Amino acid sequence: MAAKPKLHYPNGRGRMESVRWVLAAAGVEFDEEFLEAKEQLQKLQKLQDGNHLLFQQVPMVEIDGMKLVQTRSILHYIADKHHLFGRDLKERTLIDMYVEGTLDLLELIIMHPFLKPDDQQKEVVNMAQKAIIRYFPVFEKVLRDHGQRFLVGNQLSLADIILLQTILALEEKIPNILSAFPHLQEFTVKISNIATIKKFLEPGSKKKPPPDDIYVRTVYNIFMP
Amino acid sequence: MAAKPKLHYPNGRGRMESVRWVLAAAGVEFDEEFLEAKEQLQKLQKLQDGNHLLFQQVPMVEIDGMKLVQTRSILHYIADKHHLFGRDLKERTLIDMYVEGTLDLLELIIMHPFLKPDDQQKEVVNMAQKAIIRYFPVFEKVLRDHGQRFLVGNQLSLADIILLQTILALEEKIPNILSAFPHLQEFTVKISNIATIKKFLEPGSKKKPPPDDIYVRTVYNIFMP
Repeated sequence: MAAKPKLHYPNGRGRMESVRWVLAAAGVEFDEEFLEAKEQLQKLQKLQDGNHLLFQQVPMVEIDGMKLVQTRSILHYIADKHHLFGRDLKERTLIDMYVEGTLDLLELIIMHPFLKPDDQQKEVVNMAQKAIIRYFPVFEKVLRDHGQRFLVGNQLSLADIILLQTILALEEKIPNILSAFPHLQEFTVKISNIATIKKFLEPGSKKKPPPDDIYVRTVYNIFMP
Repeated sequence: MAAKPKLHYPNGRGRMESVRWVLAAAGVEFDEEFLEAKEQLQKLQKLQDGNHLLFQQVPMVEIDGMKLVQTRSILHYIADKHHLFGRDLKERTLIDMYVEGTLDLLELIIMHPFLKPDDQQKEVVNMAQKAIIRYFPVFEKVLRDHGQRFLVGNQLSLADIILLQTILALEEKIPNILSAFPHLQEFTVKISNIATIKKFLEPGSKKKPPPDDIYVRTVYNIFMP
């Protein structure tokens, strides 16, 4: 049997949380090696000749004998391996576009705790606007028009998983963010109830809590020169 | 016969230039509809019900009956269709990681003309450092270790094309950027001499010139609120 994937990242959401979501949704157990100090990162970087961190950055995931880096590449590999990328090139391309759009929105959420306190409240307004004007109407329309449970091809894909992750993270900041989107509300309930995802949403899973001051300080300590 | 792809973007490099590179390398002829005024963008956005711009943004490419958006999704589709994404999942994942790393570097180049004049020179230094310390050593080592012409699987891939685009764009700003990388120098010459790419590098092709003041002003006029 192949070893469990091992995730290298600080003990918080950041860019790794999507990877945790997709592995969990695919029913794959994984281990984590948390970066807690700059020295750990430097050790991984120094071993670059062994390609521990190809571009000297985390997220990094050891999986199937490879050391994968770059968030999107990791997500794509897991999605390909676990049949979360559609049944043909057309479905794959739709999934890819939906994921790319959603990741643009998620990126705002990931960067939010690192803004100056004064800018954080303004940025919540910006996020809400982007979500409500640019992104959610697209997914609401997709779900309304085809009347199915999933975004693409009536089976779970990377697009559903990343969208659910993003919706739940936004709802933590803006509880009524879905109020004008009934199909997305239904989507959120249904996808959350898929057995593997339901388990990930329960206490004690490897899902990480919202970023707090300790996480922000840890990230600064590790990654700032 | 399928219609030629049609690219919607301002008449300059920006995020569309990679798409032009990959289509050209694949030997695909394409048409361009240049955005020159905010009204053109708004017209495409208003037709959103027809999914003209899924997330209200360009680049957008009409191809094979679809209206593709999100730079990476467009690149992936073209690479899949034209066999520029490796022969198996392992090669695909390597190509994906190399492309993602290179796009991180290319993003700095794309944003450079929009910085304040005072910041532009500093940013050239930052780009040079990133290229020389983080990215180029990786690709130099890959080429040195396997001794082949291409980055992955000894056949042309998306990774080679985006890397060549990025090297040539960097060389315009920093002519000796490859001086410590003999294998990348050789790579640059060899990939530039592939017939389709050679043609794209010749005058009169659809390759766009370096961004100038007119391009920067056009982009501001179209995209600023």
